[in-house]
Parts: sequence; C-alpha cells; structure tokens
Amino acid sequence: MKNVLTDKVINRLTLYHSILSDYIDKDIEYISSPQIADLLHIDNTQVRKDIALLKYKGKCKVGYKAAELKVLIEDTLKFKTVKTSFIVGAGNLGMALAKYDNFEAYGFNISALFDNSQEKIGTQINNKKVFDLKKLPELATKFDAKIAVLTVPRTSAQEVTDFLVKSGIKYIWNFTPCVLNVPDDVQVWNENLIGNFLQFTVNHSDN
Amino acid sequence: MKNVLTDKVINRLTLYHSILSDYIDKDIEYISSPQIADLLHIDNTQVRKDIALLKYKGKCKVGYKAAELKVLIEDTLKFKTVKTSFIVGAGNLGMALAKYDNFEAYGFNISALFDNSQEKIGTQINNKKVFDLKKLPELATKFDAKIAVLTVPRTSAQEVTDFLVKSGIKYIWNFTPCVLNVPDDVQVWNENLIGNFLQFTVNHSDN
Repeated sequence: MKNVLTDKVINRLTLYHSILSDYIDKDIEYISSPQIADLLHIDNTQVRKDIALLKYKGKCKVGYKAAELKVLIEDTLKFKTVKTSFIVGAGNLGMALAKYDNFEAYGFNISALFDNSQEKIGTQINNKKVFDLKKLPELATKFDAKIAVLTVPRTSAQEVTDFLVKSGIKYIWNFTPCVLNVPDDVQVWNENLIGNFLQFTVNHSDN
Repeated sequence: MKNVLTDKVINRLTLYHSILSDYIDKDIEYISSPQIADLLHIDNTQVRKDIALLKYKGKCKVGYKAAELKVLIEDTLKFKTVKTSFIVGAGNLGMALAKYDNFEAYGFNISALFDNSQEKIGTQINNKKVFDLKKLPELATKFDAKIAVLTVPRTSAQEVTDFLVKSGIKYIWNFTPCVLNVPDDVQVWNENLIGNFLQFTVNHSDN
C-alpha cells in the first residue's frame, strides 16, 4: 500500500473517519456514500472512488457498515501505530496542540513539550510535562521520538531546527511561517496555515 | 485568473512568497528557481512551471528579481484585498491564531474574537478584543465580516456553526475535528490538521 494514496485521498479519508465516528456515537449502523458526500459538499463519485481504493464494498441500498469502514481506514492510515512526538515551543499554539486530544485517536502521541522559558519549564499541559529544550536530545533517544512539532517564534525557527536535526529528529511538522533548511534525511511538513486557507478564499471568493 | 490555480500551486506560491520575503530582508536582489527548489526539497521544474503561470520570466543566469516576483504573487493571490474575519472561540488555539501576526501580510485581518466565557469577554489579545458571542451578528454586519475562524470545542461546533450561518457568515475556516453541516451558500474549509500531517507520515514513513 506504500505511496499509492495521494495526499488528497488521505485527507478525505480522515474526514470520512471523523463522520464515521459521529455515526457510531449516534448508534447508526450503516452510512451511504451520498450521506458522506452531502456532509462534505463533495461529489458522491469521489467518495465511492476513495472507498473503492480500500477494496471495501458497501451493501446494495443500505451502504457501508460504519464500524467496518472505520477500522479499515484506521488500518490503511496506520492509526494504531504509535508515533511518539514532541512539541517544541510551549506558547499558545504549542499548548493548543498539546490539548488537542483528538490526535491520540490517530496514533499521534505527544509525549512532552519543550521550551527555554524558565517560567514554563516544569509546568504541565494536559498531563504532558514541559521540559528544558536542552533536555531534548536525551529524551528523544529515551522515548525513540522522531517527530517534532515546531511551534517556536519565527525568529528562532532555523536555530531550533538545527538543534532538532542534531538531536536525531527525522520529521518536523512546521507551524512557523519559515521555510526551514534541513539535510536530505529529515522531512519537513510545512503546515502553512495561511496557504491552506488562501486556496479557499482565492478560488471561492466572488470579490 | 479565476479558478485557474490549483490548491497545490497556491500553497507553493505562499511558500515562495515566504522565501522571497527572507531574501528581501537579507538584501539579496535575485533568486533562482534551483535556490527555491532546494529550500523546499522539490523539483526545480515544478518551481519554474508555477512561476510561468504568473507570466513572469527570470533573467538568464541571475534568476528572478525577488521584489518583483513577490509583488506578483501578492497580486495573484490578492494579498492586498483585506479579508475581515472573526475568531470564534478564544481558547488556546484561538489565541494562538490571534497572535499570529503573519496573517496580516496576506490581507487576512482578524478584527475580533468571540467567546461565551465571562472571564474572557472584555479581555484583549494582540490588540483584538474578545466579545460576547451574542454580539457577533451585530458586529458581523457592522464590519462586513464574512469569514469566521472556528476554534470552539468539538461539542459545540455544530451549534455555533448554525449561529454563524444565521449571522451572515459565508466562509468558515474550521479548526474543530468535526464535519460541519452548512447550507450550500456557506463554504467550509476543514483545516483537518491531523489529515495534513498524516499525508506526510503515511507516505514518508519507513515503518
């Protein structure tokens, strides 16, 4: 299954997963592709194509069994594989992400936060401790953490990135507005919040 | 130019814009497509294709004039058009976004926050006042705000959305993990943070 799902398919599958969780919470057993399509304001054919990629077939007239489809998406997107990660920068954004319990359902386990502010070091957010940034190399080895969520101010983004790279971090989820310089064996995912949203306003706006 | 740029092109253009700002800050006059491609770990051909869409040509051997290319991206993506918007939910994520000064460079002007907590109402974050959610319809009309950034807890996401729709909001930038039910004349951009990141771990991970 490696590399066969495009970014957009993965993104939609996580949205379907969210809808399926809602249905299951409401004790609704079956869901149809038009129901999913309606909620997301996308085309029914698209939904069916995506689900066909999972080699899952619905039942005629009643649709997909919500619980089965949910597990299938979880398997495909490896939600059960725990991905240990650190949040680097315990400002508002770092704290918001640390509180975002929903991540755990996706195997994304934030085990600690790091900061260099003496006021923040030693505090806890959502049962996750804030450590001195200097401790990161040691703890990355101890917890086998390869993922860092970067939420530091833009002015220290590159400097902290260099430190993360030296500490053995291999994946950086970059929430800063900076383009980071990293060696080839380190992957950066630029969250680029504003870019995501601009796609939306540029293509939909009537102004 | 309407609807001709795909989501991915727009996303990359905002990243190029960020790189160009860095170059200009450092008083570097020219930038080449391989320099941009290297920083983003993408293909040089891709960068050239994207920039060709803007009908801009670089100078042989020296590359693109950073300042000119930057303005061209700003015009294309309408960064100068002010998009007045409200943050709904003044928790950590709402506060983080209110502090994210970088949005203003893109014409994304957050003019106020809304919450229903008496402790938060009346406070200020980054010179933006937190108002009682009840005041939103009145202020949406007054400021002609059509965009809401939704950062409320998942449990109240749909209820608040219904209220926003009644208040005349037409674009919802949804940071909650919920799929929102809205009428056809309202557009929802699901930020789906975890979906964005999963794309990255599913397709790049060697595990």
